[in-house]
This record gives sequence, C-alpha cells and structure tokens, in this order.
Amino acid sequence: MISLQKNELRKKVLELLVIRASGFSFDSQRQYPLWELPNEQLKYLLKQGLGGVILHGGSVQEIKNRSITLRRWAKQSILLCADVEEGVGQRFEGGSWLPPPMALGLRYAKNPQEALYLAEQYGRCIGSQARRCGLNWVLAPVCDVNSNPLNPVINMRAWGKDPHTVSALVCSFHRGLISQGVLSCAKHFPGHGDTRVDSHLELPILDNDFSRLKEIELIPFKDLIDNGVHSVMTAHILLKKIDSAFIATFSKKLLSHLLREKLGFQGLIVTDALIMKAITKKYGPGEAAVMAFEAGADLILMPENPFEAIEAIVEALIKGRIPVKRLEQSLERRYRAISKLNSFDCDSFDDEISFNNKEFEQSDDQCLVKKIIDISVEIRNNLSSNDSNGLVNLIRVDDILPCKFLSKSSPAFLIPKKFGYKNVLFHSLGVDPWKKDSNDQLALDRFGKGPFLLQLFVRGNPFQGNQNETARWKAVVHQLQSKDLLSALIVYGSFYFWHDLSKVLNPSIPTAYSPGQMPAAQQKTLDAFFQNDKEQTLIKENVIKFTD
Amino acid sequence: MISLQKNELRKKVLELLVIRASGFSFDSQRQYPLWELPNEQLKYLLKQGLGGVILHGGSVQEIKNRSITLRRWAKQSILLCADVEEGVGQRFEGGSWLPPPMALGLRYAKNPQEALYLAEQYGRCIGSQARRCGLNWVLAPVCDVNSNPLNPVINMRAWGKDPHTVSALVCSFHRGLISQGVLSCAKHFPGHGDTRVDSHLELPILDNDFSRLKEIELIPFKDLIDNGVHSVMTAHILLKKIDSAFIATFSKKLLSHLLREKLGFQGLIVTDALIMKAITKKYGPGEAAVMAFEAGADLILMPENPFEAIEAIVEALIKGRIPVKRLEQSLERRYRAISKLNSFDCDSFDDEISFNNKEFEQSDDQCLVKKIIDISVEIRNNLSSNDSNGLVNLIRVDDILPCKFLSKSSPAFLIPKKFGYKNVLFHSLGVDPWKKDSNDQLALDRFGKGPFLLQLFVRGNPFQGNQNETARWKAVVHQLQSKDLLSALIVYGSFYFWHDLSKVLNPSIPTAYSPGQMPAAQQKTLDAFFQNDKEQTLIKENVIKFTD
Repeated sequence: MISLQKNELRKKVLELLVIRASGFSFDSQRQYPLWELPNEQLKYLLKQGLGGVILHGGSVQEIKNRSITLRRWAKQSILLCADVEEGVGQRFEGGSWLPPPMALGLRYAKNPQEALYLAEQYGRCIGSQARRCGLNWVLAPVCDVNSNPLNPVINMRAWGKDPHTVSALVCSFHRGLISQGVLSCAKHFPGHGDTRVDSHLELPILDNDFSRLKEIELIPFKDLIDNGVHSVMTAHILLKKIDSAFIATFSKKLLSHLLREKLGFQGLIVTDALIMKAITKKYGPGEAAVMAFEAGADLILMPENPFEAIEAIVEALIKGRIPVKRLEQSLERRYRAISKLNSFDCDSFDDEISFNNKEFEQSDDQCLVKKIIDISVEIRNNLSSNDSNGLVNLIRVDDILPCKFLSKSSPAFLIPKKFGYKNVLFHSLGVDPWKKDSNDQLALDRFGKGPFLLQLFVRGNPFQGNQNETARWKAVVHQLQSKDLLSALIVYGSFYFWHDLSKVLNPSIPTAYSPGQMPAAQQKTLDAFFQNDKEQTLIKENVIKFTD
Repeated sequence: MISLQKNELRKKVLELLVIRASGFSFDSQRQYPLWELPNEQLKYLLKQGLGGVILHGGSVQEIKNRSITLRRWAKQSILLCADVEEGVGQRFEGGSWLPPPMALGLRYAKNPQEALYLAEQYGRCIGSQARRCGLNWVLAPVCDVNSNPLNPVINMRAWGKDPHTVSALVCSFHRGLISQGVLSCAKHFPGHGDTRVDSHLELPILDNDFSRLKEIELIPFKDLIDNGVHSVMTAHILLKKIDSAFIATFSKKLLSHLLREKLGFQGLIVTDALIMKAITKKYGPGEAAVMAFEAGADLILMPENPFEAIEAIVEALIKGRIPVKRLEQSLERRYRAISKLNSFDCDSFDDEISFNNKEFEQSDDQCLVKKIIDISVEIRNNLSSNDSNGLVNLIRVDDILPCKFLSKSSPAFLIPKKFGYKNVLFHSLGVDPWKKDSNDQLALDRFGKGPFLLQLFVRGNPFQGNQNETARWKAVVHQLQSKDLLSALIVYGSFYFWHDLSKVLNPSIPTAYSPGQMPAAQQKTLDAFFQNDKEQTLIKENVIKFTD
C-alpha cells in the first residue's frame, strides 16, 4: 500500500523535475557524462512522466532531431528548455548568436526607441529559432540589474545597470519572445546583479535589505510579472538581512511570501541549476531538492542526482514535512503552462529544417545581428600600417577547449595575419607569458619584437573567476605604451573591463570595443581598423547556368 | 546548335565531378566557405546532374540528414563519399574512431592472424557506419607502403612498412568494408609511401623507377584490384624516372598505360583533391581538371573551381583535345559503380538513427576500438607517485582550434590533474616555451619546477610540416633527464617519432606509446601509469525503478 502510494508520488514528483541532457543524439557524444543521463535512463524517466529536459550541446539540426526523439519517448507533453539568453546560436551551432543584452542597455541611454525596438526583435529571433528547433521554453530574459561593475557572472548578460533601463528592455524582449509561442523565464529572483562572487563557484552573500530590493532589483521582475512572464528562476544568493538562514532558492520568505504573495506571481517558480557549487558545497542532492520545493519552487532544475531528489521529496511528502497540497499546486501550475503552448506538429518541423532549402538563420535574423553589432562596436582612431617584421597579434581568451568564437579561420587571426602580424594565442592552459618577477607584465622576449596588437576577449564568464584581469592588463598597457610597443587594443566582451583599460590608454592609440565576441564582431572591428576588404569567396560569383 | 551541344556536354561532365560540401546543414555553418559550395549552388548543380559530393564536418546525425537532403536534391543516384580511413568518427562526431592502420601493421609482425581478423572488422565497422549515415563510397583503404619513416603525410595512415603486410591487411580490410554495401577506394596510386614532402604543401618528387614500383608500391594495388576494389585514387607526386613531365594525377603513362592496361583496372579512377597545393601552385583550375581527365581519370575530386573545371573539360571535348569517347567510357564506369551499390531506403535510415533508441556506435564497434587500443598501447615501467608541488603535465599538440582529441574533460588532462599535476598545453599558436638561445630546449622557468610528465601528440599530419619535432623533443628529453626532471614520457601517434625518442630515453623512465590519439587511448595509457580507477559516473548506477 505504502509502496503503491510511493510509486504514485514518485511519478508526480518526476513531473516537477527538469533534467539535463546532451543535445547530441548518442551517449558517446555527451560532453558532460556526469551531468547528462544516458539515453536509456532518459527514455525510462520520460516514459514514467519526467516533466522537463534542459538541453546542452549540439547544433540546431541535432537539437531538432533530439527534441523530436524526446517528445516521442515522453508521449505526454514535456517542457524542453535551453539557456539561450543571447540567441539560439549562443548554445547551438547554426542559430543566430547576438551580442549580449548589455549592448542594448548601453544603447538605451543614447537612443531608447531604437534599443527597445531591437530588444523586441532580439526576443522574437530567439523565440522563433527556439521553437523551430523544437524547444518550447526559453530560459530568458535575465532581469538582474547589473548594479555592481565587478559582477563576475551577470555582467554583460544583464540588460542594463539601472532598474528602469532593464525593465523597459526586458518587457520589449519578452513581448517579442512570447509572440513566437514559447514560454519565458525571468531570472534570477530576487536579483543577482549586485554580486561579486560567482555562484557557480561559491555562495554570494549580500547586505541588501527589502527597501533596497524594492528600489532596484524587484522592478524588472514586477514589470515582467505584470506582462505575464511564464516562469521565474531563483538565485543562489544569500540576502542576509532578509533571510539569514536560507539562500533565495531555499527561502520561503523570498519565494512564497515575496514572490507568490506580495508580487502575486501565479506562474512557475523554477530553481536555478542545483548542481551549482553554491548549493552542492553545503547540501546533499536530496536535501537541496526538498528545501527548494518546501520554500515554494515548483520545478527543480538540474538536481545533482535526480534519483535522490525524487526519493527525498517523496519522503518529505509521506512524512508530512511538505503538504501534498503543495505538490498538487505545482503540478497544476505546470499544466497551465503546458496548455499555454501553441500545439505544433513535429513532422512539419522535420520538413522545414532538414529537407527544405531554407536556411535556419533567416535574413531578418542576420540583419538583426549585424545591426546590433553595428551600433555597439566603438572604434577610436585608425590603425596605421606598420611594416615592422616583428608585429605580434596577441589574443587573450579564457578557454580554448573549445573556444566558441575562435577557429583557425576567425577574423581575429586572419585579418591581422594578412597585414603581417604573427598570431599568438594566450589562454588559461597555455605556457605562461608573464615576467618571472612580476605577475603583471608580459615577458616580451617570448613573443617577437612588436609592436603588439592586443585582442582581449574578456567577459564575466561563469566558472572562470577572472576578476584580476583588469589590474593585470592595465599593467600590460602601461608596459607596452612606455616602450612604444602598443599598436592597438581591442576588447571584446565586458564593457567594464574596456572602460577601465581605456582610462589608462594614451588617447592616440587606436582602440576598439565590441560587446559581442562572435566572428562577425571581430570582422566588423578589424575591417575598420585595417581598412580591410572582405575577401571574395573563390567560387561564389561564378555560377554557370546550364541553359545558355 | 553549338550552345545546345555545349549544354549537353556540361551536364555529362558534371556527372564526373565530386564536389566538396559541408556536412552541416546550413551555409552559415560551413567551416571552409572557400571550398564548400553554398546550398543554393549545390542544389542547382545536383539538379543538373552533379555526380558526387564529398562531405567534411558535422556529426553522424547531421551527415545522415545531409545525405538525405542531397539525395532529394539530386533525384538521380549520386556518389556520397568521405575520407573516413580511421573510422567514421575520425571525421564525424558520434561514429567510431579507431587507432590508425599502422597499429595493425605493427601487430601483424607479432600475430598476423589477429591483425588480419581485426583489419577485416576495421573495414566492416567503417562500411557499416558509413552506410548507416548515408554515405555510399568510402575513400579507403590507403594502399601506400610507408617505406620512408620520414613520410609526413602517409605515415601512420599506412597499413605497414612492407608491401606484403600492407597487401594482406588491405585485402582483409576491403573484404570487411565492401561486405557492408559501400564502394571502396585504393589510394594513392602508384604509391605515396616513399615521400618526404607533404603534397598538401608542395610537390613530392621521387627517384623510384618502374622495377622498384613493381617490387614494392604496386603490390597492394595489384592485389586489391584482383579483389575487386571499386576505385583507385591518384597521387600528386612526380615519378621523374617514369614520367618526368607529368605528376601521377596527370600522367597518361601511369593512369592509362600502367593502371588501366597493365594492371587491368576496370573501375573508377579518381583524382586526389585538386585543391592541394602540389597542383594549384602550378596549374589553373580548368587546366588541372582537363589534364587529369586527359590522362585517364574518370572522376575529378574537389576541383579548385568546379565551374572552371566544367568549362575547360567541355572546351577540350569540343576542340577535340580529348575524344568524346573518353567521356562516354568514364560515364559508363560510373554507372557500373552506382549499379553495384545496394539500393536502400532513406526513410528507414531516418528512423534508425533519429528516432530509435539505438546508439549509432554499437557494442561490437566499441569492443573493436578497445581491442585495437589494448593490443597497440605499449607501456614500460610504472610511474611512481610524486608529491612534489611543482609537477607539470606538459601536453604538446599541433593544433588546438579545434583539437579533435582534446577537450577539458579529456583523460590527458583529468588524470594527471587528479594526481597533482599542473596542466600546460603547448601548440603552434601558443606562447613560445623555448629557451631564447636555443630552439631545442624548454625554458623551464615558464612552467613550474617539475618534474615533467610529457604527453606528445605527434603524427605526420597533413598541412603541418612538423618533421623537425623529432630533433627538438630529443633535445628536451636530454635536457630534462640531465636535470632529473623527466618523470615520464607518453607519445600518442607516430611510431617513428616514438621509436626515435625511446632510443635516447634512460631505460628507467616510465614511458608509453599509443598509435591512437583519441580519449580512449589516453585513458588506457594513463590508467595504467597512475593505477587510476575510472571514476564512477555520478548517476549511472542509480536508477530507480518505478515499480517497487
């Protein structure tokens, strides 16, 4: 009897889990096998009623095939989501990859109308592409107000630095997004913008009290709730003046009282990924899931161990720690969200992407990417040609295995090379480029005599912990300038980083800044610097018609 | 009238072209847009009768979708090929990636029976996977006898160093391959094994005369022709004692007289890729195609510019430089090859790969990979544990953007890290690790105090021109040994390179050699070195059944 009841409860709890799976078709292709269930288990759980899957890795073609497969395995409706805040192409090859939201946040100060228009297009582009590859829930927009310039994890992902800019832009974005028939998600409640610690690595603790939240952090959430956002994602941060015992994800005060009751949010509350170290350093996989659910979360995203999460929640329900009514409420909210989705036919997708002549990224999408790059790239001074035979193009990235925005044929390599520069790539695993006696100067003898073109790809990237980059590269700028060896500086990524560096730059040095790091942004910046003509492709202009 | 005739001829010539296309679905995903036609042009040419496509890039899932699309565009039967000499996974994610053929060539000396058995399985694995993702023509086996240890481009791709080993193994391989219903290709005629120059970069010139060819190079080709190989690929090499005017690809003496008449080959002669620099440095795109066809080639692979190739061949036919009969013979040979292919139904593939629970790489395939790794990895001495806090794991690769066999979660990084090593990755674009006053010693101050675990990934890779690696790394071995800083050496790839290094190694130094560079080979080697237990995956053993 109890076992039967347990089994029933398990199936219901399973509906509230959102489990990570690889976007690739086959087990051997999983990039993170520790975090991604093998197909046999995934299929089993979907058959039993698993509520959602979050996909990582693969191309849009594969995501589409994958989403069809998962739906077939599931039989009932499931939530299929992905973290595509900056375009489907941010995660999945073949989709559009847009410059980060902060690019429009910065634009808003100069031309609010244009920024709002582009934010709506931004949302529309993501919604349309997500739907076309089979996703039905987009984990965006980020509603955090990036009030802290040292924020390592939100940073350029935010739509601005003040609450009204963020609020205006996310509402436009949201209108575009949901017009395409996908569910939305406001994150990370109650606001992750004022943190200096990466919650992927450890727990951020904040001093902000309720009146401060009301003044800044809550404004975009409130406005998006009024605009019908479908879900809200919690933050793994501790607001010690509001709830000193529980991080937001586990806080009844924040989720049940503030978000549900005071802000009147009726949609789905979803946790941020429970595998993040802010959680796993302190709580076991079962306990973390129970605490989130107990605090008011409806959906449990990426539990560290889905099986333990289910058992622990079931146990908490059976023992009365959590009333069964809470389970029913969460299930009911999930049904309502599912019922909002436009129904669509898998087979028609199949045709559209695989077998039709259409490109996935449509010309509107391409124009949008180009437009946002055009308005967001800043260039100061032109680079004059230099026939030194020691020219060095030094590219700095966090990570190269892989590096999404760099390949051998990236403009960041090809264009400087065409103009006589030797390419050198510096990354976290590489041979050390620093002077032995100082951590903050380049050992110039390891490169070539110069001068140097510096291309620094720096963003507040999750998991990287690279806050010291600013001081280090300021020192490098000083070093190279003092020896007359800095021919130009380009920053791709963090506005804050660029802003700090540009303060110490000699105003005559050519410099450029691009919020986007993608090849199209590299091309735009370097074409302008070098007055480069894009090379003609070899065969493009050369079609013979077979009818003359 | 002439224009009509021209148009007819164009369509016929088009059937003899094999054009490169991206394995990815969308134009924006092309990795080499200079070499890969956009979809609109590809579709147009297929509709007009293009004879074949060679695919590069993408996963098996994408190749399958792509092959279905291309067949639909074509309407008539087309040849779909890929360079998957070492497994479908060598090119396409999700397929099996096998250690290079030379691994079995080396095994043959010790256990010919086993080597022959495994060679047949090797062919069967490739044939089956190629067919299942929609390819029908495998550009393998390499029939070159790697008689020259300094060969930069064949090297480990060969099945051996002597003609009889190669011949026995390629015949076994071929039997397995064609049993799966795909076409085969013996390459590179008349033998590319005795070259010291990479024909991707410049033209190799050889002194070998006909009697030498007969004694060594021709033996595997002859035997494979007797075994019914479907096509033979030409080599871009100059055999100056046989035909001092024309490279093999353009040599009537070699293609028409030797291969067709003397060796009696009735199948398809296909050029090696005409975009290789040995060709393009000297000949225009039209002239190269005409010369190959004139010499006796049936199919023109990867012409530098397909449109110019067509026009030039049509012109040569109209002007009588090449008799129209030659065109008809080549077309006839192509029809015969096509008719040999098992017919298969696209839709059934669709189901098999996309929507079924089956993994693409089957357990037989996995066992085969494991078996060949097991018999080919050589390990000498165990690594003793070392609690120095300066341990360095120095990994050397040619290229990292991308590096197929390395990711952040590769065993080559993870296992040494677990045992206290700091990972450093050295590659051609990185910061220089060499002493200023010598190109052949490591600047040790750039790393950590050591000792060093060296993991050198060195193969005779096309396009790399890395013949100097042996001298350089010998010097490093001397340097580290003399300072007692070499804790161990692992070579992944070239047997020749390993053999040379092991000669200068102190016999007490732990060392390992693996012909394969893939993660599974890294795991095998490092597990043995470190007596490492493979980590359990977090959730694998933990399935809850919903029926208790």
